Amino acid sequence: MSQNILVAEKILSANDRLAQENRARIDSAGIFSINIMASPGAGKTSLIEQTVHALQSQLRIGMINGDIATSLDADRATAAGAKAVQINTGGECHLDAIMLQQALQSMDLSTIDLLIVENVGNLICPASFMLGTHKNILVASIPEGDDKPYKYPSMYHGADAVVINKIDLLPYVSFRMDYFQKGIEVLNPGVVQFELSCRTGEGLNAWRNWLISQVK
Amino acid sequence: MSQNILVAEKILSANDRLAQENRARIDSAGIFSINIMASPGAGKTSLIEQTVHALQSQLRIGMINGDIATSLDADRATAAGAKAVQINTGGECHLDAIMLQQALQSMDLSTIDLLIVENVGNLICPASFMLGTHKNILVASIPEGDDKPYKYPSMYHGADAVVINKIDLLPYVSFRMDYFQKGIEVLNPGVVQFELSCRTGEGLNAWRNWLISQVK
Repeated sequence: MSQNILVAEKILSANDRLAQENRARIDSAGIFSINIMASPGAGKTSLIEQTVHALQSQLRIGMINGDIATSLDADRATAAGAKAVQINTGGECHLDAIMLQQALQSMDLSTIDLLIVENVGNLICPASFMLGTHKNILVASIPEGDDKPYKYPSMYHGADAVVINKIDLLPYVSFRMDYFQKGIEVLNPGVVQFELSCRTGEGLNAWRNWLISQVK
Repeated sequence: MSQNILVAEKILSANDRLAQENRARIDSAGIFSINIMASPGAGKTSLIEQTVHALQSQLRIGMINGDIATSLDADRATAAGAKAVQINTGGECHLDAIMLQQALQSMDLSTIDLLIVENVGNLICPASFMLGTHKNILVASIPEGDDKPYKYPSMYHGADAVVINKIDLLPYVSFRMDYFQKGIEVLNPGVVQFELSCRTGEGLNAWRNWLISQVK
């Protein structure tokens, strides 16, 4: 086994231990937490904005935003009404459990019911790094194309829910929903799916109701 | 300096040496080569299909497609008329110079004028790995949103040309072209840009003519 592979395995193993610690910390605070992942521009931040708007009267929402540069997403989440902490990964293509641990330390967890973690925009790297959150949410979008489950199987395999965003663009692009969903079904049979548009609001109710049902 | 950083620096340095070897090999065969990068679903493969259709009567085109799984893109390039070699990275989030070297060894370079390398769909990792190609082409797309240069600066900084795809969707999404292009201009002053739609064909002529002008 090469030195590089050994180093990589040690990093992953250490990450998983820290993810378990994060989970214990979140659980002991009575928080339900989700990790939102997607390719760049699929609509993670828009989904979070809509979710915060819809739920902030019922739930106290905390946000952790990961990005390789800028605080644009945290700014949008804060403007929407959430308590937001920004993590700049400094070029890393994913969040990891250490970054989440540090972010958790800077938050007052007793003031939060729902913690939303926005991962770095990427359909590959985040799949390998558990954070300790309860559910992995994968946001797909219509203009990305219907072949994405086939091309990025790890992300689709590891999702606990798939949000299919930008359905308002269906009339203007080539997207075979049956082909797309067949790909998901093969990788992740029975995974819960939501078809919605953060732009028009269509379909957001089902997503919101599911999320509320998940929060203990 | 930690062991991980040392390992990473050795990998990058070895990659750059191999990239130089790749460039020498491509140059000695009289080939002009481009490395096409983008987030998942921005339209790399569609742009390549359109380019092959437009240029195959004038240029002999070779393709190398990188993906973490499947040969869907190589199949599309082959159907469009190119000689295509597929690289499956086995989970890696980018191509590197070693992968390109191996792909080049499996091609008859004397039969190619233009070599198109399609990188893995990702706006982060490919920026760190030179391949040895002549020009880096970054494909952006309108539905991804106008904040991408700000959020993924390394990719925009390192591009030799930016193709802004899916302009046919401008009426249906929120996208401030001036804000987007201001971000590009700050990171990469004067970089050549093309606004086009692979779906409608609008703007493809300028891209095609620029590409022909680059091929020696």
